[in-house]
Amino acid sequence: MKHSYEEVIDSLIKFRDERDWEQFHDSKNLAIALSIEAAELNELFLWKQLPESENIPKEKLKEELADVLSFAFLLAHKHGLNPFELVLDKITKNAEKYPVEKAKGKSDKYSEL
Amino acid sequence: MKHSYEEVIDSLIKFRDERDWEQFHDSKNLAIALSIEAAELNELFLWKQLPESENIPKEKLKEELADVLSFAFLLAHKHGLNPFELVLDKITKNAEKYPVEKAKGKSDKYSEL
Amino acid sequence: MKHSYEEVIDSLIKFRDERDWEQFHDSKNLAIALSIEAAELNELFLWKQLPESENIPKEKLKEELADVLSFAFLLAHKHGLNPFELVLDKITKNAEKYPVEKAKGKSDKYSEL
Amino acid sequence: MKHSYEEVIDSLIKFRDERDWEQFHDSKNLAIALSIEAAELNELFLWKQLPESENIPKEKLKEELADVLSFAFLLAHKHGLNPFELVLDKITKNAEKYPVEKAKGKSDKYSEL
Repeated sequence: MKHSYEEVIDSLIKFRDERDWEQFHDSKNLAIALSIEAAELNELFLWKQLPESENIPKEKLKEELADVLSFAFLLAHKHGLNPFELVLDKITKNAEKYPVEKAKGKSDKYSEL
Repeated sequence: MKHSYEEVIDSLIKFRDERDWEQFHDSKNLAIALSIEAAELNELFLWKQLPESENIPKEKLKEELADVLSFAFLLAHKHGLNPFELVLDKITKNAEKYPVEKAKGKSDKYSEL
Repeated sequence: MKHSYEEVIDSLIKFRDERDWEQFHDSKNLAIALSIEAAELNELFLWKQLPESENIPKEKLKEELADVLSFAFLLAHKHGLNPFELVLDKITKNAEKYPVEKAKGKSDKYSEL
Repeated sequence: MKHSYEEVIDSLIKFRDERDWEQFHDSKNLAIALSIEAAELNELFLWKQLPESENIPKEKLKEELADVLSFAFLLAHKHGLNPFELVLDKITKNAEKYPVEKAKGKSDKYSEL
């Protein structure tokens, strides 16, 4: 079954509100929480090199990615932002910042996407 | 106009492939990139307290959130994972971990969502 | 009793070598480890506002700060750098970047120290 | 010339006070700032694999490590903690947590130091 973003954000909000947690979810703390979850995601790869670093526990990867996404969705929602529009807009901007002819095959010119 | 996740991930992959960047996008580096973008998101809130910390430049917030989401989507896609399923599964798990009666109104019992 | 930096870095190296861990300690992984420990430090403050955010468990603060410092010292040592010189040099640079008359009492002009 | 920790922390405090920045330096914001600088340090290694990842610009490495150390020292100082004692105490704890016979040559058993 395919899920929609609306279903996901509604579930996140319902989970939050049942626990009366909105009081803790100011933007700054959501951003900090997102960073902490991103660090837990990184911990799965710590001390590993390729190709071993691709063989990480799938279940842990799913959980840490879910946590990162949850806080990103909650922060976007708090500011009335749609995640898909955000990303599509950024791709348009990045296309100007990293023109194909200049960026092709080079990682040293960019630190993003 | 409403966008779908498929549209977004296809655009991200197209952007990446036009620049021949898949070679850099192993899982570990995607996770590091995600953390770096999460830190740039946090920088918007640095040294600020409530309520000032809610008044951050909207355009910057959009860009940093977009970067975080882009790397999260690319990492999920690399492992054949759907972001919505991930989050919905995690909500189910968290509902067991944080039962309403115990977690209600308390931030000190959890460090996640 | 007062300890010296030499005593500290020698102890860190001895601990590492007894466990044959130098093989894992390339610069990139040390930097990732440092970030993960910084995130664990941040977790102590998550969801808290002033003044409550100053009342964190002292023992946890000590441990997380120690972990951050350990990886920072190991990374500096790997590159033949002395932590004190690094910081003193940076203060000299920052003094030019943030002249007193311009920076006084303003947090919005800088994102560093 | 050899520098002492006292000289370093005194210089950091002097720099801070000349700019009237202590008002921004609550513990939580110092921890966030530390994480942001740690991410900037990680950015030096992004998309790089060994052995290339060891060849990073020395001057940038020095600056980012200095920023991380500065915020770690300021946070330690705020809580009356000596960085060297912190690390030496943690080594003693870690020696119990990671006994040589169990930890030797294994990275998968630990996520710290």
